[in-house]
Amino acid sequence: MTYCVAMSLHEGMLFASDSRTNAGVDNVATFSKMSVFEVPDGPHQRCIVAVNAGNLATTQNVISQLRRKTAQATAEEKHILNLPSMFDVAEHFGQVMKSTIAHVEENQLSQSSVDFTCTFLVGGQIRDEPPRLFRIYPQGNFIEATSDTPYFQIGESKYGKPIIDRVVRPETPMSEALKSAMVSFDSTMQSNLSVGLPIDVLVLKRDYLKPSLRYRVTEDDAYFQNIRKAWGQGLRQVFQGLPQPDWFKS
Amino acid sequence: MTYCVAMSLHEGMLFASDSRTNAGVDNVATFSKMSVFEVPDGPHQRCIVAVNAGNLATTQNVISQLRRKTAQATAEEKHILNLPSMFDVAEHFGQVMKSTIAHVEENQLSQSSVDFTCTFLVGGQIRDEPPRLFRIYPQGNFIEATSDTPYFQIGESKYGKPIIDRVVRPETPMSEALKSAMVSFDSTMQSNLSVGLPIDVLVLKRDYLKPSLRYRVTEDDAYFQNIRKAWGQGLRQVFQGLPQPDWFKS
Repeated sequence: MTYCVAMSLHEGMLFASDSRTNAGVDNVATFSKMSVFEVPDGPHQRCIVAVNAGNLATTQNVISQLRRKTAQATAEEKHILNLPSMFDVAEHFGQVMKSTIAHVEENQLSQSSVDFTCTFLVGGQIRDEPPRLFRIYPQGNFIEATSDTPYFQIGESKYGKPIIDRVVRPETPMSEALKSAMVSFDSTMQSNLSVGLPIDVLVLKRDYLKPSLRYRVTEDDAYFQNIRKAWGQGLRQVFQGLPQPDWFKS
Repeated sequence: MTYCVAMSLHEGMLFASDSRTNAGVDNVATFSKMSVFEVPDGPHQRCIVAVNAGNLATTQNVISQLRRKTAQATAEEKHILNLPSMFDVAEHFGQVMKSTIAHVEENQLSQSSVDFTCTFLVGGQIRDEPPRLFRIYPQGNFIEATSDTPYFQIGESKYGKPIIDRVVRPETPMSEALKSAMVSFDSTMQSNLSVGLPIDVLVLKRDYLKPSLRYRVTEDDAYFQNIRKAWGQGLRQVFQGLPQPDWFKS
């Protein structure tokens, strides 16, 4: 399983992804699920971030193909590093995903029950454009985050959704949003063993066109340990403070 | 969807079930998901409670068959109202479920993608036996709650699981357990529209052999409204009190 979240806020964008990959409980490994595509300056200046859920072979294949297209392109060919808008990037991404999944599925062994699909959250900013965030489906189509729903989750999303729903609005400060993401990961990891540390975090402030923060939350991270403990204690305190049901007399 | 929870505590047993049934978002209705089988006195004295998730037609069919067996039985035939132990009740329940599901599936239209299965939580107490709680699978087999895991959930269980995990132990007082169940339903209903009020609640105190509480939590229930509001405010307060990540400077 996987848990990734991405938010599009007034202050900029936030991406966070866990790094546990498992094929059965006896085959667990660490793979980063975050990829960054950067052009640091020039007319095509941009920073694009992708986080993924789903079949590991397929997601690695998609990322490899996107990178190969940038390396092998002729001057006229369009790819993720020179497409003129984030909308075009999302379309390109979706097409590569769709054709990769179709190719893998065509060549699968018959009767295989393996799910070869994947889903990506892709966001970022291209020079002279506002930041935009997309959720790209295995079919290649996509939806965009808006002020009504400024965030997307993929993978094991249920346990970590309530806190984000309660806290995150487009005007939420980045530090608050990061805090909510950490609580959200804590809730998820408490309940699903297949989501695990380290967590890759990336912040893309509006109009900076490069990461303001790239950070890996490991088991030794004092802040994350602190949050986990304080959140659990706080929940229990709030719960203790709630009244008992008046319709039950013990 | 559905959300039901049952707990087996030192003080007794607690059952709670929502009552929303839906076949698509445009076809929503209210059906209680709780059934009670009682023998108020005599050598077979007992109180057995079942809550269900899954296909409504199948669950109603199972309950009808269990009741019909009690009405039509000869003096020697065993049924839910005279079986000697809760283990036998769980086995009987499982057999009726399994044969009902098999019968419905045999007679289904080919190519139908409807899921005809169901799952039950069945618990209660029979005179001269301790209370026991079982989770019965569509295959007819079952597991029993223990002091390590004193509760079961069925249906949309993820949103409401964390609070129960944090709070409920076998020694938890019934009023605390009821409170945790109400918070658990609140979390679930906040995030899944297909789980809805009213909530049927039943408490079976140890050795009473009859319900100590049968209560229906409706939209007008002042306690539930109060809990929902106070829990949301409390969560936001705890969140506000958590420190900002020290590895991010805004």
